[in-house]
Amino acid sequence: MSVLIVGSTALDSIKTPKAENPRLLGGSASHAAIAASFFAPVNLVGVVGEDFPKRYLKLFQKHKVDLTGLQIAPGKTFHWSGEYEVNMNNRRTLATELGVFETFTPHLPAAYQTTPFVLLANIAPALQGHVLDQIRKPKFVVADTMDLWLNIALPDLLKLLKRVDGFVLNDSEARQLTKEDNVMAALKKIHRLGPKYVIIKKGEHGAILSQSNGGMFVAPAFPLHRVVDPTGAGDSFVGGMMGYLSTASGKVDDNLRKAMIYGSVVASFCCEGFGLKFTSRITRAAIDARFKELAALTRF
Amino acid sequence: MSVLIVGSTALDSIKTPKAENPRLLGGSASHAAIAASFFAPVNLVGVVGEDFPKRYLKLFQKHKVDLTGLQIAPGKTFHWSGEYEVNMNNRRTLATELGVFETFTPHLPAAYQTTPFVLLANIAPALQGHVLDQIRKPKFVVADTMDLWLNIALPDLLKLLKRVDGFVLNDSEARQLTKEDNVMAALKKIHRLGPKYVIIKKGEHGAILSQSNGGMFVAPAFPLHRVVDPTGAGDSFVGGMMGYLSTASGKVDDNLRKAMIYGSVVASFCCEGFGLKFTSRITRAAIDARFKELAALTRF
Repeated sequence: MSVLIVGSTALDSIKTPKAENPRLLGGSASHAAIAASFFAPVNLVGVVGEDFPKRYLKLFQKHKVDLTGLQIAPGKTFHWSGEYEVNMNNRRTLATELGVFETFTPHLPAAYQTTPFVLLANIAPALQGHVLDQIRKPKFVVADTMDLWLNIALPDLLKLLKRVDGFVLNDSEARQLTKEDNVMAALKKIHRLGPKYVIIKKGEHGAILSQSNGGMFVAPAFPLHRVVDPTGAGDSFVGGMMGYLSTASGKVDDNLRKAMIYGSVVASFCCEGFGLKFTSRITRAAIDARFKELAALTRF
Repeated sequence: MSVLIVGSTALDSIKTPKAENPRLLGGSASHAAIAASFFAPVNLVGVVGEDFPKRYLKLFQKHKVDLTGLQIAPGKTFHWSGEYEVNMNNRRTLATELGVFETFTPHLPAAYQTTPFVLLANIAPALQGHVLDQIRKPKFVVADTMDLWLNIALPDLLKLLKRVDGFVLNDSEARQLTKEDNVMAALKKIHRLGPKYVIIKKGEHGAILSQSNGGMFVAPAFPLHRVVDPTGAGDSFVGGMMGYLSTASGKVDDNLRKAMIYGSVVASFCCEGFGLKFTSRITRAAIDARFKELAALTRF
């Protein structure tokens, strides 16, 4: 089955202590779509400007990402630039130019409206909701978010949470949303907001899944010798997870653990290169090999 | 087989936002010894003052910890007092009174000198070395440490590291020692200092084992709903690990993963009460049950 992914499609200029990389392919939907493409056909919903490099369109096409839902609008592509500190954990935004994103309204092509797996990657929660309005009988809907929406669009986000099956956020966002320092206490509070499945991402420390039926999974991250650029790792995680989920036979509940590990593996590759440079060059075989490696690293 | 444990035996006064607990049984050796006692006979080496409460001696005895090596010296027991902030991750030392520790020289009773498993729990590295001098043909020696010794006794610690099989430290200490932010890079550098086995503790995020033969294990922590007092959790981790290791049949290499998980489980119990209050009340059956639970939480 295929996955519908909506989110930002952007150009990222990323500075680290060692290098400067202007106008990389970035954005939550771009990372998630490429990650999911290793497992399943992807329907992409987003917007870019007329300045969006053709080579990035070709990259999506090479990964069989359907671009019928990608609007090319007059104006400039959303541009984010940021800088990482030496330890690669702290980053600060240098500039955000919304461009064509300012007036973006996602519109789903007819063929997309019955996509069974839906990933509402990070984007304004009102737009995530607007995509959901156009979807008919989805099998599994997951939303991701970021601290910005907790700050400026919390009521929209809370409305959205009542409509999704799964919600993914990172540990600091979970703390901000629930005012709870303890992850388990935070998970409990987030379930009360609606989602049956809550996943808290902890970066290099892995992720935790909690199900409202009491189920729980502690997922490891793949230990990396070198982190080049963590931008998009969280998006790669949910993208890989949803990609695997959509093709695995059986119930979501039975596949979610493996799906998270696949997500974790794709996220680890993402960190090994700038933007999508590394991820876009890997293969399903490389993903499967690292999946096995991670299983061996954590078995006891 | 039995475990020899040397380290601090102290009285801890611990303040949290919710409670004040004066003169709890504390110290690295106390926590490690009780943790190890669920698995193996323990030989304790340490010193306390004449003010050391009889009930704490009884507690050790109840756990069949051999106290022949515990000196009772004229003067006061080492006393540490500290305060935790709301999130229980940051703590600050309010006072440290060395008492009888100031002039402590560990002396091993004859019966201790052939103990096969040796845990040099956190204490000045020169004293850890002095214990090693008195040990004959140990099977497996592990040293723990703390940031204080990196600051004031680094040459002693570096000397010690050439003499131990395993070295355990937490992530911030690993960064301090190696100037590496990346855990994998830090592990590599620490192997070069001597130890064949290096374990980096990451608190609620688990621990990572690296072996100089390339072996590696990513160990989870048991997710807790409530952390009452994390003091001694790291000591409980190594204590439980060494306790299990000393009784498991076969090679250390084949038992180390399970041993770390057992350590992780005892550490989780430690966090659920002040000082040793909770740990001292659990049973091996409760430990085994949580071991299974953790296995179920992480299987994929």
